[in-house]
Amino acid sequence: MKIKEFYKKNKVREGDKIQFDFKGQIVEGTIIPTSRNNLIIKFSSGYNAGFDLIQVKKVKKIGESKKVGKTSKIEIKKKPNLPTISLLHTGGTIASRVDYKTGGVYAGFEAEDIAAMFPEIIQKANFESILVSNMMSEDMTLKNYSLIVKAVEKEIKKGVKGIIIGHGTDTLGYSAAFLSFAVENCPIPVIIVGSQRSSDRGSSDAGMNLICATEFITKTNYKGIAICMHNSINDDYCAILSGTKTRKMHTSRRDAFKTINDSPIALINYNTKEITWVKKQEKLEKKMIIKEKFEKKVGLIKTHPGINEKILDFYKKEKYKGLIIEGTGLGHTPIGEKEIFIKKIKNLVDSGCVIGITSQCINGRVNSNVYSNLRKVSNTGAIYCEDMLPETAFIKLSWLLGNYSKEETKKMLVKNLRGEITSYTRIDVYDE
Amino acid sequence: MKIKEFYKKNKVREGDKIQFDFKGQIVEGTIIPTSRNNLIIKFSSGYNAGFDLIQVKKVKKIGESKKVGKTSKIEIKKKPNLPTISLLHTGGTIASRVDYKTGGVYAGFEAEDIAAMFPEIIQKANFESILVSNMMSEDMTLKNYSLIVKAVEKEIKKGVKGIIIGHGTDTLGYSAAFLSFAVENCPIPVIIVGSQRSSDRGSSDAGMNLICATEFITKTNYKGIAICMHNSINDDYCAILSGTKTRKMHTSRRDAFKTINDSPIALINYNTKEITWVKKQEKLEKKMIIKEKFEKKVGLIKTHPGINEKILDFYKKEKYKGLIIEGTGLGHTPIGEKEIFIKKIKNLVDSGCVIGITSQCINGRVNSNVYSNLRKVSNTGAIYCEDMLPETAFIKLSWLLGNYSKEETKKMLVKNLRGEITSYTRIDVYDE
Repeated sequence: MKIKEFYKKNKVREGDKIQFDFKGQIVEGTIIPTSRNNLIIKFSSGYNAGFDLIQVKKVKKIGESKKVGKTSKIEIKKKPNLPTISLLHTGGTIASRVDYKTGGVYAGFEAEDIAAMFPEIIQKANFESILVSNMMSEDMTLKNYSLIVKAVEKEIKKGVKGIIIGHGTDTLGYSAAFLSFAVENCPIPVIIVGSQRSSDRGSSDAGMNLICATEFITKTNYKGIAICMHNSINDDYCAILSGTKTRKMHTSRRDAFKTINDSPIALINYNTKEITWVKKQEKLEKKMIIKEKFEKKVGLIKTHPGINEKILDFYKKEKYKGLIIEGTGLGHTPIGEKEIFIKKIKNLVDSGCVIGITSQCINGRVNSNVYSNLRKVSNTGAIYCEDMLPETAFIKLSWLLGNYSKEETKKMLVKNLRGEITSYTRIDVYDE
Repeated sequence: MKIKEFYKKNKVREGDKIQFDFKGQIVEGTIIPTSRNNLIIKFSSGYNAGFDLIQVKKVKKIGESKKVGKTSKIEIKKKPNLPTISLLHTGGTIASRVDYKTGGVYAGFEAEDIAAMFPEIIQKANFESILVSNMMSEDMTLKNYSLIVKAVEKEIKKGVKGIIIGHGTDTLGYSAAFLSFAVENCPIPVIIVGSQRSSDRGSSDAGMNLICATEFITKTNYKGIAICMHNSINDDYCAILSGTKTRKMHTSRRDAFKTINDSPIALINYNTKEITWVKKQEKLEKKMIIKEKFEKKVGLIKTHPGINEKILDFYKKEKYKGLIIEGTGLGHTPIGEKEIFIKKIKNLVDSGCVIGITSQCINGRVNSNVYSNLRKVSNTGAIYCEDMLPETAFIKLSWLLGNYSKEETKKMLVKNLRGEITSYTRIDVYDE
């Protein structure tokens, strides 16, 4: 049965609250738009679930569909005793709403609307909203990063207490890494906030993430770039996460963002608003240095059995300045027949391209000293990127080549600049 | 200071057991070869750690270096009352040893040596050792998979109780997926075993993984392909893991293999040898079907901000039959200026290439219905691969195109064949 027939037969429509029997269990919730032929229900807990239409029996409508209207803009009156937070807006789910007609989510809110949707945060700080760009994060380009950096610089120079950047979650990790490198000795908290569910849904994490980021900015003296997202699937804690060690690790969960090979910076209890530091913060009173350039000709490839070695020729032909290879295990790449893959890596290095090696295992550290095949890769001049995330290594290489010479880039790639590489001498890191 | 000077100054060498002071703490262990300028120590617990040379004080030698000799082959006498397990050997760390001269690990054991190194398993079954190939797993090619499948088929037809395949860990997940697809209705347990530390190291996991695989084969009636590796960093349990849902998630930890978007099949208590089933097993009495062909022209790419859309032209020019795109979040790809990336995807689909979309989040399910940009990708004819791992999707697509028509491939790619796709209707899967 098609979902449309199901709706017709049961006289229900998207947005209706219904009750039904599923394998003998009574289920209650609101119909969520879908293009699949499953019944998608949002529970009052905020969680969604799909149900096989054949198993759905005795459907009863218990509430009418409400169409999502436009949220009216609320003019925010400034309170002189409150600190100022700049709300930079770049798009993404945190500014998305469901269009019930097509069943999709689109980016449509302006920054003021967000503040208006979560009145709680207006009690904590004065917000200044700035629209940097409005795009879904999957379409974020390196050029956008420079725009965001410039907007951040401008706000810092205004003397605000902190900055919240609303960002789509898909490439939030990449952007956080770029900002971390581009703004050295950042004097205030710059907190990137996303949301995995759009703001008009019961299960939206937008509000809690924004509120926790506001609490963290107003209550602490943190200096630097960080991410603020749900710490678990419950609405209990938000985590403040490193801008260079954090990765989106789930397509849909609200606690999708996880710090890899390191611990979170702090946790914020949503109920008590208490802040717990997990990582010790260093005192930092150096002058801010902004470097927002990047090199466009930097790539990222993932190796796999049977990978075509000609892909390396592609990057050579396109005159790439940098390439991150996501190898297997400790940083292996295929060797290939007659060592052709290794030879092509060497060719690319010899053509002037800086090659960094990371691991598709994501967790752990690459190490060119364990296996003899690893030494072959290492001998080409490719650089092993320690325990850096592949995504961070890609951003770092692009940023380094944009702002430093090739020789400086090669040295700095494996030097810890912004917490992207943890110390090798930590007992728990090498071999857990 | 260089590590060699350190050794010279302290009159110690690789393999020596030493005691020293590190930041006021007394540390004791064996010197592990390294090419870094850190002191690498193996503790009696089996764990290794690196130490900054400047911090290492008061070095005292407490034991002499023992060079690793050749393990002599032990001829295995068959016991008529024991079941027979075929030990297929493909290379990897499980058959590696440290060459103390170069400090590296090389693949050098034959299958008999492994059995001889772990006499415990010879009490449980008669082993027949077959060398399929001897290569490090990073250099495993699709051609090797067909060889392994044929060797498995041959052993099954001999009527053995089960098969253990020794495999390098780097691409073990890819191989397990291929075997899972190639051997339909496998009538016996075929357990792939790797090891993260070479067999001659105190912390080696080779023995425990082999012993647990042997216990599982001799004590259960499991039918199918699975992986047997450490369940945690402790030597307490091994996990039996799905051949299609499992991924190497750490470069060095012994519990690197994790089942994604599903639970392990069973756990084996290493001390009591008790087996706990986690997943219910279906009764299966269908005829085995072997399909070991594959299509070589299948690729895997990972998208990132600033990705060059011409990479898609490369696959078109190379006449690829299939391509898995590891997008961001729910399965986004960049859109690109004037939708150029989307147009190039469409071009590639129109040229006859089957494109599958997965997520670099690894955990969770892709979904083409949530965002309007996702629909643009979906409209090109690219196929959303549910909650399949990108690596499994790549192997499945190569296998499907090798054994079925293009039209059949497109349908079967999103149909669950071997547990690679979990049911969408499970409440906990869609939106946890």
